[in-house]
Amino acid sequence: MTDYELANAVVSRLYDKKMHVATAESCTGGLLCGAIASISGSSNVLEYGIISYANHIKQEELGVSDKELTLYGAVSEQVAVAMACGVKKKANAEIGVSTTGIAGPTGGSNEKPVGTVHIAVVAFDRVYHKKLELLSECGNDRQKIRVATVNHALKLLLEALSDI
Amino acid sequence: MTDYELANAVVSRLYDKKMHVATAESCTGGLLCGAIASISGSSNVLEYGIISYANHIKQEELGVSDKELTLYGAVSEQVAVAMACGVKKKANAEIGVSTTGIAGPTGGSNEKPVGTVHIAVVAFDRVYHKKLELLSECGNDRQKIRVATVNHALKLLLEALSDI
Repeated sequence: MTDYELANAVVSRLYDKKMHVATAESCTGGLLCGAIASISGSSNVLEYGIISYANHIKQEELGVSDKELTLYGAVSEQVAVAMACGVKKKANAEIGVSTTGIAGPTGGSNEKPVGTVHIAVVAFDRVYHKKLELLSECGNDRQKIRVATVNHALKLLLEALSDI
Repeated sequence: MTDYELANAVVSRLYDKKMHVATAESCTGGLLCGAIASISGSSNVLEYGIISYANHIKQEELGVSDKELTLYGAVSEQVAVAMACGVKKKANAEIGVSTTGIAGPTGGSNEKPVGTVHIAVVAFDRVYHKKLELLSECGNDRQKIRVATVNHALKLLLEALSDI
């Protein structure tokens, strides 16, 4: 499925269930919310999104803890889940989705190479998480990594919605 | 210039001047921030963005007043400027940029047809505003209107930066 088809399915399901999603993005920088907002009528299910590039924004706006950032790093399952929880709570939405990763071409390390991405969805009290390792698929290509991340995030969102 | 070239010029100028931009988006839904974040190194100049689709988010998160929304409507010069001011202040950035418009295909009126968009940039205490009427150029095409808005917003941002 294309991003448009995935986003359309996400918006339709949310609309049918009278639910709302809120987005918290780091590496995708707004593209995930942009994909959802590409669907006409998305304003019924999407009220709020945040791009939290800086760590202090993740803390101040999303309630990510200093401990989570220090112990696990901004690109981690723990921070992805905290971002999704934080934006869900802040927006008073039923579902929160987040992305945090290393889009490159710089910023990679042995432990977390370029293309390491964590995605989380929190739907009511259920947590969904996916770790991506996109280096072999996307190379050091910042745009490819961001685009692939949006696609995976929409799929995870749809997976979560199919469980509700 | 392409969006990528415009965004690259914006990020370079901000970096040279050690300044930061924050984004507040309605009709573009994250695509403007996504365009800026497509540039490697943008995290040095971009810490925070918000997608404020709902009016109550514009009020709670950006300080847009009830009076501005009621008197002028969400798609207006006054609200665009208030959004840009609000996100600049919230992010403690030197520059704020905003978009608010009717991307369609529904939601238009005689007074504000589909394709009516307001963009604002607030740089320190200078205010830049542009009203777009994109119906003849883009038709009723939601994606074309959003893409054209991102391009115009990047141009307005670059114009503001050239004055600093």
